[in-house]
Amino acid sequence: MRIMATRLISLFFSLLFSLFSGISFAKPTPSFPSSIIRPEKISLSTPTEPYREKFFTQVLDHYTFRPQSYKTFQQRYLISEKYWGGAEKNAPIFLYTGNEGDIDWFAQNTGFIVDIAPHFKALLVFIEHRFYGKSMPFGGNKEVAYSNSSTLGYLTSTQALADYATLIIDLKKNLSAADSPVVVFGGSYGGMLAAWFRLKYPHVAIGALASSSPILNFESITSPYSFNNIITQDFRGESEDCYRVIKRSWQEIEDTASHPGGLDLLRKSFKICNNYISASSLYNWLYTAWVYTAMTDYPTPSNFLSPMPAYPVKEMCKAIDDPKTGNNTFAKLYGAASVYYNYSGTATCFDLDDDSDPHGLGGWSWQACTEMIMPTSGNNEDSIFAASTWSYKDRAASCEAYFGVEPRPSWITTEFGGHDIKRVLKRFGSNIIFFNGLRDPWSGGGVLENISSSIVAIVAEQGAHHVDLRFATSEDPKWLRDVRKREVNIIAKWLSEYYDDLDPAH
Amino acid sequence: MRIMATRLISLFFSLLFSLFSGISFAKPTPSFPSSIIRPEKISLSTPTEPYREKFFTQVLDHYTFRPQSYKTFQQRYLISEKYWGGAEKNAPIFLYTGNEGDIDWFAQNTGFIVDIAPHFKALLVFIEHRFYGKSMPFGGNKEVAYSNSSTLGYLTSTQALADYATLIIDLKKNLSAADSPVVVFGGSYGGMLAAWFRLKYPHVAIGALASSSPILNFESITSPYSFNNIITQDFRGESEDCYRVIKRSWQEIEDTASHPGGLDLLRKSFKICNNYISASSLYNWLYTAWVYTAMTDYPTPSNFLSPMPAYPVKEMCKAIDDPKTGNNTFAKLYGAASVYYNYSGTATCFDLDDDSDPHGLGGWSWQACTEMIMPTSGNNEDSIFAASTWSYKDRAASCEAYFGVEPRPSWITTEFGGHDIKRVLKRFGSNIIFFNGLRDPWSGGGVLENISSSIVAIVAEQGAHHVDLRFATSEDPKWLRDVRKREVNIIAKWLSEYYDDLDPAH
Repeated sequence: MRIMATRLISLFFSLLFSLFSGISFAKPTPSFPSSIIRPEKISLSTPTEPYREKFFTQVLDHYTFRPQSYKTFQQRYLISEKYWGGAEKNAPIFLYTGNEGDIDWFAQNTGFIVDIAPHFKALLVFIEHRFYGKSMPFGGNKEVAYSNSSTLGYLTSTQALADYATLIIDLKKNLSAADSPVVVFGGSYGGMLAAWFRLKYPHVAIGALASSSPILNFESITSPYSFNNIITQDFRGESEDCYRVIKRSWQEIEDTASHPGGLDLLRKSFKICNNYISASSLYNWLYTAWVYTAMTDYPTPSNFLSPMPAYPVKEMCKAIDDPKTGNNTFAKLYGAASVYYNYSGTATCFDLDDDSDPHGLGGWSWQACTEMIMPTSGNNEDSIFAASTWSYKDRAASCEAYFGVEPRPSWITTEFGGHDIKRVLKRFGSNIIFFNGLRDPWSGGGVLENISSSIVAIVAEQGAHHVDLRFATSEDPKWLRDVRKREVNIIAKWLSEYYDDLDPAH
Repeated sequence: MRIMATRLISLFFSLLFSLFSGISFAKPTPSFPSSIIRPEKISLSTPTEPYREKFFTQVLDHYTFRPQSYKTFQQRYLISEKYWGGAEKNAPIFLYTGNEGDIDWFAQNTGFIVDIAPHFKALLVFIEHRFYGKSMPFGGNKEVAYSNSSTLGYLTSTQALADYATLIIDLKKNLSAADSPVVVFGGSYGGMLAAWFRLKYPHVAIGALASSSPILNFESITSPYSFNNIITQDFRGESEDCYRVIKRSWQEIEDTASHPGGLDLLRKSFKICNNYISASSLYNWLYTAWVYTAMTDYPTPSNFLSPMPAYPVKEMCKAIDDPKTGNNTFAKLYGAASVYYNYSGTATCFDLDDDSDPHGLGGWSWQACTEMIMPTSGNNEDSIFAASTWSYKDRAASCEAYFGVEPRPSWITTEFGGHDIKRVLKRFGSNIIFFNGLRDPWSGGGVLENISSSIVAIVAEQGAHHVDLRFATSEDPKWLRDVRKREVNIIAKWLSEYYDDLDPAH
């Protein structure tokens, strides 16, 4: 089996839980441009059990009334009535606010909602984000939808939120379930959407579980170094040696690549298939492995971005620290990278050219060039990566070159806030859970402290990227079971208050 | 002096505090189409004291990233630092969220903010709503901006709110006043915008005084008869006879108009200038007088929509009940209409053809054909007007005929809520005052009960349309002084809490 990886190419910063590092287009540079790596293609059955796939006729532009605004598209959603208590009992609706990819994939990786649905007798709905998966404006034709900024321009978070409100209001009407309370769930960018949905549409959702939602990774609210600092800490926490090997490897790769025969040596060391290689593409390949593994450093085996063992960072550092590799840095790195790229052991070589996108995440590049200007790519002197600074100018130049679009770096905080969030929401809003796992680099932009009695932070020191939303397994550690128990209890409280308000004699 | 009135013509339902009655376009019909009457042109000095006029480069479309979205326009705002305590003291900013007309006009009629500014040491800012006054997209050219739905399509409440957020954030930055709290004020549609602004932009505004904001006049939240029922009660409360004379007049006018020479008789009776007259245009003329007078039934002389005495409804009924007019219905109506159209006594004839629009309210027709579908034109059997039912179909047909646009009647409640508002906001949000005067027909769509300890309703039985926002006068009745005192106290509490949160040691 030939395993595909990617070189810089087409999409730079990809999905939210991807990398927003220094970017360059024309040529890979040693500045660690980000990349999408799709190591083992996961075949997606559509729809995922227990869901049925449905479509809703959605309007293209909620916020203007131009003739073009009235164009419609088919928005996909997954629905399961399997556990629902029914409209006549005002049984609740659990709604996942889809993020930047195929909704099936999020459904597969958000088992928590299925796990708790029987207890709450909840209807389950997963709505796909516009411009992803099958929810493609412009006649369902992705090529047209993605052809230029005139069409892609409708791919925005605010339009997506309005989509969700419109769809769920219509769905409730059709189900005669006007009084069924809606609780929204989301992870990562989907978690940002869930939190914002509760803040902007309190008349539609009574509460939100926003898991690993870095709503503070905008403007200067949090440090541009936090993201890579957390990754650094993840590896350094396993072993100082592991950290040092990775940290010095970047220079070693660059030095090797610049010597005659060096690229061939690198190709052999990392079993790169017989195609394009450069120091930069190898950087990307390794960088991606370290970042994604830190993000998905789950306590049980998983297959979210890639099939991996439990505690994969620990496994990586084990490989690096393996005495058998002696002083051979490349052998150490190869062993560690294999945890991410070849856990199944079936790969014989790796393809740095691969730009496959099995989860349909490509639209994030656009979002990262318009609204989602998240300064997370800084590396200070202690970073496990080479030192670098976040540069808005570089981002803007890349976006101009790639899409001909100018970012609006202040828009998200203008529309959704973020600055002084504790002061702002202390006396405003309610019923939001912000979950963060501190091993997740995105937790640096998360809400880590309680804001009020009902806008609360749940922080898991050992947690990774929206680990709480995953299916429960028998190997889950106690802290994870406790996190989910707290979440269930809080949601139960929201619902109980809602029913009391609905019918005080209830 | 020749006084101008309007016949049906160009703009049907005009400004928010205008009439949303049955509409027809091609020809006036007896179904009381609404109209704009501008009796005495008010000359507007620009800017109004104590304000300076300024302009802000605003983006055309906040919610998409198409090339067209990036067009900009000059948005006008009025500013006064006269009373401001300054940025270094984090002194507050009082922001008026402009509604459908020239911002000068609202500034002139919102003296409350000037009256209380010295006490709070507040910076005053009045932002003009896009597509009104001088804040015209498309190069400041109203003809282009209003030419078709491709340009007018950007005239929406959501874009306006985003304009306000963008402008005030930028202004605070330029003033180095990041920590100066913003309190928003608005009346009528501006009051809706103020309430929605606090709900959607709590990170920008710490509280809102939403005066006479009929945010519940959407879909089926409130009765479509409430508006005209309140007008009926206003007149009937003065005298049963007054009510009966007006109520039967519609038939009498129609009967007269249908007889040979009848229109001439009507022309003479109402001193209509030597131009177009029909039963329908006369209906409009009278209907407008009764509605606007009910809306602005202020306890002191005023000049908002028209120069009028204190308690003008009472004055109208006095004219109707005047024994000198005997049984002459038309003489009675003429006397009453003169209170609205000719209080200064300088008019010699009235022009039903007039479609002048001195306050620049024309864009409301568009808004009423897209988002602002407010079912308020129903008249039940007891109504002072002829019985009629609200018809969405008629509205949609008119909008199609006039603008080629299809309304989105559920959009406002989707985006801003309204259904079950008490339940929704009981546990969400804070710091909103909803003022309503019960003599104001728009109070039927207002929030009339406290929702929580900090989302409160102030209801004045004797109050008319945003009377609280007017300049204080020495003749103000005690109830009005009390209303304003309560408002000041509540705003003071918001500010005090804010400063405590900002600096607990403060």
